[in-house]
Amino acid sequence: MQLDDGSIRDVSSLVRDYSPDTISPALIKILLDADLDTLPVVPNGVRIGAPIARTGHFIAIGLNYADHAAETGAAIPSEPIIFSKAPSSLSGPTDDVILPKGSTKGDWEVELAVIIGERCHYVPEEKALSKVFGYAVCNDVSEREYQMERGGQWIKGKSAPTFGPLGPWIVTPDEIADVQNLELFLDLNGEPMQRGNTSTMIFSVAHLISYLSQFMVLEPGDVITTGTPPGVGLGKTPQIFLKAGDEMRLGIAGLGEQKQKVISR
Amino acid sequence: MQLDDGSIRDVSSLVRDYSPDTISPALIKILLDADLDTLPVVPNGVRIGAPIARTGHFIAIGLNYADHAAETGAAIPSEPIIFSKAPSSLSGPTDDVILPKGSTKGDWEVELAVIIGERCHYVPEEKALSKVFGYAVCNDVSEREYQMERGGQWIKGKSAPTFGPLGPWIVTPDEIADVQNLELFLDLNGEPMQRGNTSTMIFSVAHLISYLSQFMVLEPGDVITTGTPPGVGLGKTPQIFLKAGDEMRLGIAGLGEQKQKVISR
Repeated sequence: MQLDDGSIRDVSSLVRDYSPDTISPALIKILLDADLDTLPVVPNGVRIGAPIARTGHFIAIGLNYADHAAETGAAIPSEPIIFSKAPSSLSGPTDDVILPKGSTKGDWEVELAVIIGERCHYVPEEKALSKVFGYAVCNDVSEREYQMERGGQWIKGKSAPTFGPLGPWIVTPDEIADVQNLELFLDLNGEPMQRGNTSTMIFSVAHLISYLSQFMVLEPGDVITTGTPPGVGLGKTPQIFLKAGDEMRLGIAGLGEQKQKVISR
Repeated sequence: MQLDDGSIRDVSSLVRDYSPDTISPALIKILLDADLDTLPVVPNGVRIGAPIARTGHFIAIGLNYADHAAETGAAIPSEPIIFSKAPSSLSGPTDDVILPKGSTKGDWEVELAVIIGERCHYVPEEKALSKVFGYAVCNDVSEREYQMERGGQWIKGKSAPTFGPLGPWIVTPDEIADVQNLELFLDLNGEPMQRGNTSTMIFSVAHLISYLSQFMVLEPGDVITTGTPPGVGLGKTPQIFLKAGDEMRLGIAGLGEQKQKVISR
């Protein structure tokens, strides 16, 4: 956990790990009630892993920013597009992103991720945000050939190991004034690629949670990554895809930053 | 666990539960080495739940039987079609199947499910079956309107709670002479609907595991349900969809049978 003074504190005396088994409304209360200044400081240089040990379900939303839909040539969806990433794609915010063997169309997607805190099914939109454990930065790394040219469903291009950097933090909802007004950015090798704001989402976070809960039960520790603003490599003219040696830096206001080096398998 | 004499034995002295945390090659050895006749007999009438407590990833394969692809009007896929079901859709083999609110196109799919026993990535086809913990019957229950008429990806119609009846057993590979020669059946209200054999799969179980492992890491406790033979309601003339009060009975030779009553939410 990062405090306002910038120090990183070890919360392992409060919770064994963030996981589907430990995430709950009670855990939020434990964290809010704790005297954080007494927690041990994590030394500089320690690797920060994903802020959740394991996700029960890694759900993703497609084409949820109008200007991103336009850049990929897709129509504005009339309902949210749901797909999923393999839970084994989850990785830490500064871990290397490893391109699969033979990959030529790796791409980036800075996204706001929502971590569910409480089981929900058919939750109305006005109650949906009360089911959130926290928010985090996610890079929904994608292989566009696998996603779109190998037959069928998007999961194929979204699931390689290291394709789901999450974190550095899970920020609890009390720290976020308005989840629909957060700046997002992603730079590739120091060049600006993505710039956006969650205010231009087609479907709000509350709507997405409510909508998803009509089709499935959401459980504590489920991660929903909510779609990407414009500026992905697929949408550039000419197109730009990831290659070994590239460096991505991305972040969301109030949620921290990620940095990944790209390597080949 | 069911013994050859038909008795059901309680294995909780050998393993706490079958889950991603306990499934491993070592567990297969523990089960094979145990003196099964000394295990307590489970009394008749006890509810048999899903044979795995939780799946890390519930993966499904689309259109994997040539004659099923034909009945749905789809082309024979050149590569396996991968999609997923929410892990929260998992249910027991005789639990009621609950149609979602307003559902009008519920459908059945008897399928051979594979439970992965060991982490694998880029596993060659000839080694793929050594990564299997066991096999089970799965009913890949589907809502065709949600799957095909609500925009985007199939996960939307495959993920409702109770849409993943699994079991009654996980049968270890040593008990199966040839996984590509197993009869499958499904009856609706006593009428034959699906009849098939795993010998007519387009992509074999070994090929599917190897193929999937090129796109994602497979982990112990991942469930792969491998596609359905012909006879689903969507493919009938006229089409037949599930309604409250219906009863499905389905099974696979050597893997046991399931029976579900359909109810409305």
